[in-house]
Amino acid sequence: MSSEKGKNEKASPYPLAARGAKEDTKVAARGAVFGAERLAIIAGPCAVETEEQVLTVAGRVQAAGATALRGGAYKPRSSPYSFQGLEEKGLEILARVREKTGLPIVTEIMDARAIPHFLKHDIDVLQVGARNMQNFTLLKELGALRKPVLLKRGMGSSVTELLQAAEYVLHGGNEDVILCERGISTFEKSTRATLDISAIPVLKKETHLPIIVDPSHAAGRPDIIPALARAAVAAGADGLIVEVHHDPSHALCDGAQALLPDAFAAMMDDVRRVAAAVGREA
Amino acid sequence: MSSEKGKNEKASPYPLAARGAKEDTKVAARGAVFGAERLAIIAGPCAVETEEQVLTVAGRVQAAGATALRGGAYKPRSSPYSFQGLEEKGLEILARVREKTGLPIVTEIMDARAIPHFLKHDIDVLQVGARNMQNFTLLKELGALRKPVLLKRGMGSSVTELLQAAEYVLHGGNEDVILCERGISTFEKSTRATLDISAIPVLKKETHLPIIVDPSHAAGRPDIIPALARAAVAAGADGLIVEVHHDPSHALCDGAQALLPDAFAAMMDDVRRVAAAVGREA
Amino acid sequence: MSSEKGKNEKASPYPLAARGAKEDTKVAARGAVFGAERLAIIAGPCAVETEEQVLTVAGRVQAAGATALRGGAYKPRSSPYSFQGLEEKGLEILARVREKTGLPIVTEIMDARAIPHFLKHDIDVLQVGARNMQNFTLLKELGALRKPVLLKRGMGSSVTELLQAAEYVLHGGNEDVILCERGISTFEKSTRATLDISAIPVLKKETHLPIIVDPSHAAGRPDIIPALARAAVAAGADGLIVEVHHDPSHALCDGAQALLPDAFAAMMDDVRRVAAAVGREA
Amino acid sequence: MSSEKGKNEKASPYPLAARGAKEDTKVAARGAVFGAERLAIIAGPCAVETEEQVLTVAGRVQAAGATALRGGAYKPRSSPYSFQGLEEKGLEILARVREKTGLPIVTEIMDARAIPHFLKHDIDVLQVGARNMQNFTLLKELGALRKPVLLKRGMGSSVTELLQAAEYVLHGGNEDVILCERGISTFEKSTRATLDISAIPVLKKETHLPIIVDPSHAAGRPDIIPALARAAVAAGADGLIVEVHHDPSHALCDGAQALLPDAFAAMMDDVRRVAAAVGREA
Repeated sequence: MSSEKGKNEKASPYPLAARGAKEDTKVAARGAVFGAERLAIIAGPCAVETEEQVLTVAGRVQAAGATALRGGAYKPRSSPYSFQGLEEKGLEILARVREKTGLPIVTEIMDARAIPHFLKHDIDVLQVGARNMQNFTLLKELGALRKPVLLKRGMGSSVTELLQAAEYVLHGGNEDVILCERGISTFEKSTRATLDISAIPVLKKETHLPIIVDPSHAAGRPDIIPALARAAVAAGADGLIVEVHHDPSHALCDGAQALLPDAFAAMMDDVRRVAAAVGREA
Repeated sequence: MSSEKGKNEKASPYPLAARGAKEDTKVAARGAVFGAERLAIIAGPCAVETEEQVLTVAGRVQAAGATALRGGAYKPRSSPYSFQGLEEKGLEILARVREKTGLPIVTEIMDARAIPHFLKHDIDVLQVGARNMQNFTLLKELGALRKPVLLKRGMGSSVTELLQAAEYVLHGGNEDVILCERGISTFEKSTRATLDISAIPVLKKETHLPIIVDPSHAAGRPDIIPALARAAVAAGADGLIVEVHHDPSHALCDGAQALLPDAFAAMMDDVRRVAAAVGREA
Repeated sequence: MSSEKGKNEKASPYPLAARGAKEDTKVAARGAVFGAERLAIIAGPCAVETEEQVLTVAGRVQAAGATALRGGAYKPRSSPYSFQGLEEKGLEILARVREKTGLPIVTEIMDARAIPHFLKHDIDVLQVGARNMQNFTLLKELGALRKPVLLKRGMGSSVTELLQAAEYVLHGGNEDVILCERGISTFEKSTRATLDISAIPVLKKETHLPIIVDPSHAAGRPDIIPALARAAVAAGADGLIVEVHHDPSHALCDGAQALLPDAFAAMMDDVRRVAAAVGREA
Repeated sequence: MSSEKGKNEKASPYPLAARGAKEDTKVAARGAVFGAERLAIIAGPCAVETEEQVLTVAGRVQAAGATALRGGAYKPRSSPYSFQGLEEKGLEILARVREKTGLPIVTEIMDARAIPHFLKHDIDVLQVGARNMQNFTLLKELGALRKPVLLKRGMGSSVTELLQAAEYVLHGGNEDVILCERGISTFEKSTRATLDISAIPVLKKETHLPIIVDPSHAAGRPDIIPALARAAVAAGADGLIVEVHHDPSHALCDGAQALLPDAFAAMMDDVRRVAAAVGREA
C-alpha cells in the first residue's frame, strides 16, 4: 500500500488533489455545499465595516439566493495607507450576522496566528487570498484544521501551482479544500485581471476538488460581473464569490467593483437560468 | 458636420467602431447572420484537404446545427515545414461544398493579392487571422471591399488594439466586421492560449460590432472546448467558430485540437440550452 | 546527405536557423556588419518626415557613432487616424540621405508588393515589424531576395516562434537574417512592453543569426533607453536600433519615446564602455 | 509639517519609498553595503544542507568576490513533497559559517513567528521571497525590526506593487529595505520567469532604495546567468544574488539552476569589467 502511494506520488505533482485520488469532493459549510448539484453562492461586502452594513448586505444577498456570506475582517491591501480591516472585531460582527441570518461565513485569514480567533468564532470557511496562495506556512497550519479552506489562485500562479498549494492542505489531513479562480496577471488592462475561464474545465479534469469563481476581483469593475458569473457557471464552476455593497460610493474597500444588491439579484436570476441549462441549480 | 466628426475622433480611438456610432451591427453572410438573436455557428476542419473531407465534415456539422463552414485554404503556419494549405484549389473545394450544402464559407486571407481569388469564388466571409490582426495593408484593402470580414484578435493585442484594427476596415467603408476572441498569450500553459472571456462583455460595452469566440485555438485541446463554448455563449458572444474533423489523427493541420463530429453535436446541444438561458437561439 | 538533412529537420523546429547549422552569420549592409566584433548601431527618426529632418538626425547620430540609419517610410500604426508614412517618397528621401552620409538604410516593409520600390532604391536592410513577424507571405517573398532582413519579434511571440519565422526567410534561400528583440506584452505597465533581455543569451545558444535590441519600442519612454541599451550590449547583443529625433515634440510619430541627439551621443559613450567590457567595440 | 506629509501621501502611492523622500538609501549589513559604489554580491546555495556544504560554497564564492552569503533555511517549495529546509538548524549553520568566513548572511523568512530565531542568530539580512511579497502581516512585523530586509518582487506583481510592499516595511520605521527583481510570469518559456530588466532603471527613477537582481531564479537555467548578471549591472543594479553549488547534481533544491563555483568566478570577472564600465566596482 505504501509502495502504491509512492507510485502515485511519482505520477502526479499533487497525488492527493489529483482526479483519480478519490470521488468528487463535496465541502459542506453549514447550509452551503461546494461541489453539489446546487451551486454555492457566496456574496457580501469586500470589508466588514459595521454590523449594520454587513446585516443590510447579508439580508439582501440572502433574499436573492446567496448561500454564504463573505466579508473581510483581515484585509490584505496593496498599500499600508488603505483601510486594513477590523480584524477580530470583524469576525465578531460576522458571527453575529450569521446568528441572525443563518448564513455560513467565508472570510480571509492572512496569518496562522489568527487561527484561534477564527476557531473561537467558529468561522465556517477560511479563505486564503491570492497573495497568500504560496504562503506555505499558513497552508500547513490550515492542513492541521478540520475546517473548510477556500484557496484562491495567485495572480502569477499556474493551475499546477494552485493544485500543489492545495496539496499542502490535503497533505496535512484537511480534505475540505475549495479552489477559486479569480483572474491572472496579463497585458490586457480593460479588466483588473484576466479571468482564466479555461481553468474551470482544466481543473475539473485534474482534480476532485470543487472550484468556484470570483468575477469581482477578476473584473475590477461591476458592469461585466454578471456576464462573467454566467460564463463561470456555464463552464462548470461549482459556485461564485461576489462582492456586493448597498452603498459602494462609501465602501471602505473596493467599492468601485461592488455590485448593488439589485444588480446582484438580477445576476442571480441569470445565473439560475444558466445553471439549469447545464444541469445545476442556484 | 465635419467638426462633429472631428470631435468624435478625439473622443474615441475608434470612432466608427465605438458603441455610440450606430445601432448594433448585424452582418449577414448568406444564411448566417452575426449579431442576431440566433447565434452564428461556424464549424469545419482546420485546413481544406480534399473535397471529400470537407464535404464529410460539412454534412456532419450542418446536421448538428452549424450555420457556416470554416476551412483553411491559405494557412499561416509557424513553421515553413508544416502543410501550407491548398491555396486557390482550396477555395474551389469550399465553393463546391457550399453549392452542395448551402453553407456560407468562412476562410482566411493572408495577403491582399489573393483578394481576386476570394471574389472569384464569392467567399462569404474573409477571415483575418490573429497573426495578421495588425497587417494594416491587408486591413485597408479589405476596407475597400463590400464583403464581411472576420477579424481575430492577436495573441499579444489588447481589446483597444483589436478595435483600432477593426477601425481600419470600417474607415475604408466596409461596415461588415465581425470580431473574434481566440485567446491571448499568458504564462498559463495548460491551454495553448488563455481565452479572455471578459473581452466579450467589454467589447459589448465598447462596440456595436458582433463578437464571436474561437474556443478551439484558445484551448489547443479538444476536451475543454465544449465548456469554453458554453461559457462564451453565456457571456454574450454572438457566435462560435469551432474546428471539427472526422478523422483528427490524419488531419494535415491541428488535428490534436479538433472535435469529432459527435462531440460537436453534443456540444451544440449544450450550447442551445445555454443560448436559451440567455435569451438567444442556436 | 539528404537523409542527414532529414534528421536535422526532425531534431529542430528551425533546422536552418539552429546553432549547429553553420558558423555565426555575419550580415553585411554597406559599411554596417551585424554579428561582427564591432556592434551595429542603427539610429534615426521613427518616421521619415522631410529630407531636412532625416538629414539633420542622420548627421547627428553618425557623428555619435551610429553605423546605419533608420526611418519609417511605410508605417504600421495602431490607428488609421495616425500618420501613415510617406511611402515611396520616404524611400527616396532615405536614399538621398544615404548618398550624402554614406549610412546604410534600414526601413520597414509592410507588404510584399512594395518590394520593387525597396529594390529600386536599393534599400540596404528590409525590416519586418513586430506586427508582421508571422506574416508568412511576406517572409516567403523576402526569402527569395538577396537583401538583409531585420526580423522583429512579435509582442506575443515566443523565441521559438521568432526562430521559426526566421526559418521562412532562410528556407527561401536568403541567409541574411538579423533578429531583433523589442519587448513582449506583459502585465507590467511602467514600460510599453517588457524587454526580454534573457532572449539575447537564449538566442545566442539557439541560433547562429545576429541579434540586435530595440530599447526604444520596448521602453516607450526615453529616460530608460540608455540603461536598456547598456544592458543589451552587456548581455551579448550584436547591435541596437534606437529612435532619435532632434525635435521630438513635433515628431509625426512616437516623439514621446525618441532620444534627443545629445542624449543619444551620451548613450553611445556608455555603450562603447560596456562594449569594451564584454570584448566588443561600438 | 503634517499637512506637508499629507500632501506627499496624496502625491505618491509610496511616499516613504518615493525618490524625493530622501537621498539614496545605503543599507549596510556587516561588510556588505547595498547602494554603494561597490556592488553587493550575494552568493551561495539554494538551500542549507550541511555545514560542510555551506562552508565549501562560501569559501569559493568569497574567493571569487562575493560580499555576502545566501542559503535557505526555511524553504518555500511549490510542492509539500519537496525538501522544506533545515529551519532553525539551518540558521545555526549559517551563523557558524559566518563566524569562519566573516560573510554576512542573507536568508529567507517565511513567517513572522520565526523572527526570534533570526534575531537570536543575528541574521544580517532577512529576505522576503517573491511568494510572500504581499504577505502584509510579515511585512509589518519586519517594519518593526531594525534589520535589513531584502524584498523580492512577486512574479505577478507590478513595480508599483513592489514599492507599495516596501512601503509597509518603511512605514513601520525600518528604513533598510533592499529591492530585488527576480523575473515575472510571462508567456515565454525558454526561461523560468522573464527578467524585467527595465525594472532596474524604472525603480532608480521611482525610489531611493537599493535594487539588486536575482538572475538565477529568473533564468531557471545556469547557462544564461552570466549574461543576465552582466546586463543587470550594466542597467544600474546595486548588486546581485546568485545561486552557486559545488555539486549541483546532488543539491537538495534547485540544483539545475545553480552555477558551479568556477562558473561563478568567471562570471565575477565579467561583472567586474562591466561594473567598471558603468562607474561601479565589484
